[in-house]
Amino acid sequence: MPTHSFKLGVLVSGRGSNLQSILNQIEEGTVPAEVAVILSNKENAPALERGRQSGIKSLFVNPKDFTNRADYDSALVGILKEHGVDLICLAGYMRILNADFIRTFAGKIINIHPSLLPAFPGLNVHQQAIDHGVKFSGCTVHFVEEEVDSGPIILQAVVPVEKDDSAESLADRILQEEHKIYPEAVRLLAENRIRIEGRRVSIQEFTE
Amino acid sequence: MPTHSFKLGVLVSGRGSNLQSILNQIEEGTVPAEVAVILSNKENAPALERGRQSGIKSLFVNPKDFTNRADYDSALVGILKEHGVDLICLAGYMRILNADFIRTFAGKIINIHPSLLPAFPGLNVHQQAIDHGVKFSGCTVHFVEEEVDSGPIILQAVVPVEKDDSAESLADRILQEEHKIYPEAVRLLAENRIRIEGRRVSIQEFTE
Repeated sequence: MPTHSFKLGVLVSGRGSNLQSILNQIEEGTVPAEVAVILSNKENAPALERGRQSGIKSLFVNPKDFTNRADYDSALVGILKEHGVDLICLAGYMRILNADFIRTFAGKIINIHPSLLPAFPGLNVHQQAIDHGVKFSGCTVHFVEEEVDSGPIILQAVVPVEKDDSAESLADRILQEEHKIYPEAVRLLAENRIRIEGRRVSIQEFTE
Repeated sequence: MPTHSFKLGVLVSGRGSNLQSILNQIEEGTVPAEVAVILSNKENAPALERGRQSGIKSLFVNPKDFTNRADYDSALVGILKEHGVDLICLAGYMRILNADFIRTFAGKIINIHPSLLPAFPGLNVHQQAIDHGVKFSGCTVHFVEEEVDSGPIILQAVVPVEKDDSAESLADRILQEEHKIYPEAVRLLAENRIRIEGRRVSIQEFTE
């Protein structure tokens, strides 16, 4: 893995396929960043194993070791600060971050959500899209604010919903787009090319 | 204008550019339908003039001649039934139809909305999209139900939001797509190729 000054902390709960897409792009040299630490609230998250295989410090932080969410999130803040992270990427992290965490890293937390937000926030996203009968869905990389799935939008990708799609088949096709736009968003942030005005996010041309 | 057995009633309030796109496709022979009557709640709606130029009965029905909305809508129902319409197309009709109207023509009223519903229902749609910072918007042809902008979706088209888009420039590009998918939806309905299951609308292959 190349070393870079732009350091990522990645929060995971599951398989971590989006983490893997970021690691791949870092390894190929397209994303000028390094993953400093991976944190999971699930001991058996395959994402931790992926991180370890890439030689990255990958920690299970057990919620049961803390009396409440505030203490837990505060512990995460401590670990992320200790590793000097510049950006925190949520990659299938299935806990809601508390307000203190989000304020501490204001403007430095991003997430990927598998719909064209503001359509279909929350859970069971693909089933929501199928049941609603939309002809297009997609995915959204956005900044994380206190209200869930609502922060300024960095990148989106569109995926047509096919006539016979199940939630699973739609999820599979959208995931392929997630694996493109999430590393791309990290790259733009690492290159300091993102500006926010109100809720509108613009991408600056690359200048040497 | 070709005559057809599938008869449309079109409700308008303004310029009627979507009405014009339907009239054009009928004239070109791609949409097997005829517009039986055009009704407007605005006397000076340019859409009425468009209709008259195509030799279509185009009526201003003055809301002030009625004591309440129920009576007004009931008068529209009478005129539409008298003309034997099979489908009612809202084309920039800026009044909300009452429940009796919608029940009378259940499953036979369609509308076009300039966003990718369920995102951005209501008014000032393009400004909503710009302010929210979405990277894609579009338009939606949907069946009309009692809840505004919420019926089953027939067709959608996607339009990228450009970096420097104003509500006006975005509206212009989306309108071009509206002019494609609205006549297309009318065609599919005239050809009896639309099936609804729950909220999911599917398009049948064309069979002789």
